[in-house]
Amino acid sequence: MSRALHEVASGSLFGVALNYQGLLQQHLASFHEAPYRQPPVKPVLFIKTPNTRNGHGQALTYPSAVERLQPGPALGVVIGKDASRVSVEQALEHVAGYTVVNEFSLPEDSYYRPAVKAKCRDGFCPMGPELVPASQVGNPDALGIRLWVNGELRQQNNTANCVRNVAQLIAEISEFMTLHAGDVLITGTPEGRVDVLPGDQVTVEIDGLGQLTTPIVAEQGLAP
Amino acid sequence: MSRALHEVASGSLFGVALNYQGLLQQHLASFHEAPYRQPPVKPVLFIKTPNTRNGHGQALTYPSAVERLQPGPALGVVIGKDASRVSVEQALEHVAGYTVVNEFSLPEDSYYRPAVKAKCRDGFCPMGPELVPASQVGNPDALGIRLWVNGELRQQNNTANCVRNVAQLIAEISEFMTLHAGDVLITGTPEGRVDVLPGDQVTVEIDGLGQLTTPIVAEQGLAP
Repeated sequence: MSRALHEVASGSLFGVALNYQGLLQQHLASFHEAPYRQPPVKPVLFIKTPNTRNGHGQALTYPSAVERLQPGPALGVVIGKDASRVSVEQALEHVAGYTVVNEFSLPEDSYYRPAVKAKCRDGFCPMGPELVPASQVGNPDALGIRLWVNGELRQQNNTANCVRNVAQLIAEISEFMTLHAGDVLITGTPEGRVDVLPGDQVTVEIDGLGQLTTPIVAEQGLAP
Repeated sequence: MSRALHEVASGSLFGVALNYQGLLQQHLASFHEAPYRQPPVKPVLFIKTPNTRNGHGQALTYPSAVERLQPGPALGVVIGKDASRVSVEQALEHVAGYTVVNEFSLPEDSYYRPAVKAKCRDGFCPMGPELVPASQVGNPDALGIRLWVNGELRQQNNTANCVRNVAQLIAEISEFMTLHAGDVLITGTPEGRVDVLPGDQVTVEIDGLGQLTTPIVAEQGLAP
């Protein structure tokens, strides 16, 4: 039995933008325009605030006045030991385990700097169904990841296609900030995001980590 | 006696970018360029993560490999009651009190989307010296705010010059996310940010809220 996810993963939730090769390639051209004029050279982080926390099987309310909502299948890395300036070689020693994350978002107007308003709506970060200890996960950088909507496979990829692997992310982020035990790194969502609607049943599956299901519901008082 | 600040203000720390008229005016031209092509229409938020928390009189370590560090004098609004879609008229009922914040940052390459790497270094968000209950603060939108470096006045402004006042911020942010009791809104830093160096003593003062002092220290093993 693994320890309860929400007991261990009680810290900050850090998202990594643009961490799949396919997604990065799609956006490379725009990065050479103003105001940035070059692609990001370091991991671009965003934060999922505590109001976004959500669990396996728990509903996500489709926000009113929002045109599109997109699930974000992602591997979650739960930090087990404070990490400050750790090397790539030692990075994985700081991992307690892994879990499935569905990093919901409104469509981005900028991948370079994800907006709080798009990422931090209430319930926008389901995690689960459980924390799988690192010792039970062979290689976190070679896990199949799939998104199902109402039983239909809509997105699939593999963490092997990440721009930075788990150890590189921990090393590069811990260069400029301490990652604390209990923090969660959301290691990126692959290209090909799809739209979902109230009434949809959304499931993210990762090899060896199980399935995380989120029913999308309409706001009370609104027709589905 | 006010309740202990860190006991009450234990939630998320939300920063508001570009919330002083002078700063907004300075950057208006650039907002009409790609990729945004218009100024922000809603409050632009950023997050100070828990590793940035710091207290009155506590040191901030000047990060290595960083060329410039800038203090950010700001009024902190501590939420006392959960706020979800509250009106401007009712917004201030959700405030527990106010405090002084020094929202340290590396210089921004984009005010439109502040970077985690610039904002979320360890210790980059001193707050204090105490929580002053809302009932003891007359009008939060008419407070003088001053920055002193080594006893020299370097920046001064007044919260009356904010683009959005405290009630407007709470109303507009709570439209899209729940602000929880214990969360802190950092209502913006005025134009004219200055650079500080190891060895400097940095103080932010706000009318009626006291003085928050932060000594800047060099990293251990490095000359100041």
